[in-house]
Amino acid sequence: MMRAVTLLRYGGPEVLQISQIPIPVPKPNEVLLKVHATALNRADLLQRRGFYPPPAGASDIIGLECAGEVAQSTRNWASGQRVMAILPGGGYAEYAAVKSDHLMPIPENLSYEEAAAIPEGWVTAYQLLFYIARGKAQEKVLVHAGASGVGTALIQLAKLKGLKVAVTCGSQEKIEFCKNLGADLAINYKTESFKQKVKEFGGADIVLDCIGANYFEDNLDAIRLDGRWVIYGTMGGHQVNQVSLRGMMGKRISLISTTLRNRSDEYKADLVGSFIDDGILDAFRNRVLKPIIYRTFPIEKIAEAHEIMEKNENSGKIVLKISN
Amino acid sequence: MMRAVTLLRYGGPEVLQISQIPIPVPKPNEVLLKVHATALNRADLLQRRGFYPPPAGASDIIGLECAGEVAQSTRNWASGQRVMAILPGGGYAEYAAVKSDHLMPIPENLSYEEAAAIPEGWVTAYQLLFYIARGKAQEKVLVHAGASGVGTALIQLAKLKGLKVAVTCGSQEKIEFCKNLGADLAINYKTESFKQKVKEFGGADIVLDCIGANYFEDNLDAIRLDGRWVIYGTMGGHQVNQVSLRGMMGKRISLISTTLRNRSDEYKADLVGSFIDDGILDAFRNRVLKPIIYRTFPIEKIAEAHEIMEKNENSGKIVLKISN
Repeated sequence: MMRAVTLLRYGGPEVLQISQIPIPVPKPNEVLLKVHATALNRADLLQRRGFYPPPAGASDIIGLECAGEVAQSTRNWASGQRVMAILPGGGYAEYAAVKSDHLMPIPENLSYEEAAAIPEGWVTAYQLLFYIARGKAQEKVLVHAGASGVGTALIQLAKLKGLKVAVTCGSQEKIEFCKNLGADLAINYKTESFKQKVKEFGGADIVLDCIGANYFEDNLDAIRLDGRWVIYGTMGGHQVNQVSLRGMMGKRISLISTTLRNRSDEYKADLVGSFIDDGILDAFRNRVLKPIIYRTFPIEKIAEAHEIMEKNENSGKIVLKISN
Repeated sequence: MMRAVTLLRYGGPEVLQISQIPIPVPKPNEVLLKVHATALNRADLLQRRGFYPPPAGASDIIGLECAGEVAQSTRNWASGQRVMAILPGGGYAEYAAVKSDHLMPIPENLSYEEAAAIPEGWVTAYQLLFYIARGKAQEKVLVHAGASGVGTALIQLAKLKGLKVAVTCGSQEKIEFCKNLGADLAINYKTESFKQKVKEFGGADIVLDCIGANYFEDNLDAIRLDGRWVIYGTMGGHQVNQVSLRGMMGKRISLISTTLRNRSDEYKADLVGSFIDDGILDAFRNRVLKPIIYRTFPIEKIAEAHEIMEKNENSGKIVLKISN
């Protein structure tokens, strides 16, 4: 048996509880990990409320990433090896069974907590910017929620590959934070018009958008000819009223909606492979990139951790420590 | 001086008139063509009404394609050579100056009138299906306005490359016509629900959409996971009242809006090169593909030709004969 976070019912942070449940049994192409740390994602809050069921075959435990050690050797991975992984679920637990090719070695200079802040956010950021939007050096990218887990990864990845980055966020503190990470322009959406600021910036070749409906018109205004506009979340509503297809055609815009969790195992394996081959882990090793941790909580404080994310207080990732 | 179709003012077909205007002077990278035939495109009707101004630097004469002979030798093209070309404008005239790398040789088995039915419609169809939507063998594609110039090209190109094709059109005659061209499914949108029919067909991996707003919701229903939905016209309105981003994300849809005319010369040269390299001209030579001509008019009957297109009477292209 192992400790895991389970749900009393669907609802607010108070429904999260620690339970004893069976250790998962890895399938032939899976590796059993002893999880040292995991981290929160916004999707976790939706899943807790019952709005984001795990895909078929996935654990119904919340948690999309983890860092830990290999618990049983397999052909490719040695017992005790320090690894991190993206998961379709099951991260909030002492053990997780993970697809063998969704694993990555943890760079030697990073702790388990630091590593736990990487997989889901950084692989998603990599997917959005390079797989989906095909971002290239010198292009201008607009990142909404710049201080979020994915946002802080996007800023660093964009700068690593020579793009120019504008971000939006909701406080002066977050603006300073994003600028320190390398953002060329950081806009306080509560006090400024991001549309106007991004236009002065020269417009956006790429918009990476987790907001959706609320920002739709302003994004359409801020984006440039041949812009790629990637929707990966709808924190600002999902129902858009009045979309001008002529406005989109005038700029030859591609509006691309995407998710990561419900992709095929092959897609994820390919994505993780590209992430490594493209030198991202090496950049962590060389400290050119850094995982951004806002706070670390012991697993017993999971409800408090969820509350902080729900209030948008965090800049960067909220990590949960599960075992030493 | 040369004969050309000019506009008395913006308006209906009656504003089209034959005038004498100067022969265009080719720029260094252009070739002067003696135009034997041109063809109508829906964009011509918009331009006639003043809704689709030519891009900067283009002729203000209507006409997006032509077939003729090289009037003056250049480094790459010999005087008298039979060629056809996409144009940003200027097709409705006795002479046209064309970018050298937007030209294609006319397959020997085709007349000038047949060749005039190829460039804009077929290059657009090729662009939509392969450049933009990245269509692959076995995928299912939904083509609206299947009996249009672009539609009849799309049906044949899709079948040539092993895709399965469903089309919509507005009469029993057009349905038979599309089926004869190879459409696997032809739906009369006036009497049937295309959404329902396409679902029974297995859904669409690709939607090629020149309709826009009127079909928006049904397209979203008919499209499959990871679907590419390409908007290249808004004959059914351009203002969509309600768009569900959640609905799009659930299927990871890419909604791609595109045009051809206002693309860069380099883009068009590249596209024309791919069109040739991919064996499309050879397929015309081997009679695997065929240009579809609805009717041919002498240039003096240009108003009548426009009227027919405006009434959606045509199946395939309406060709204008300019000289012998």
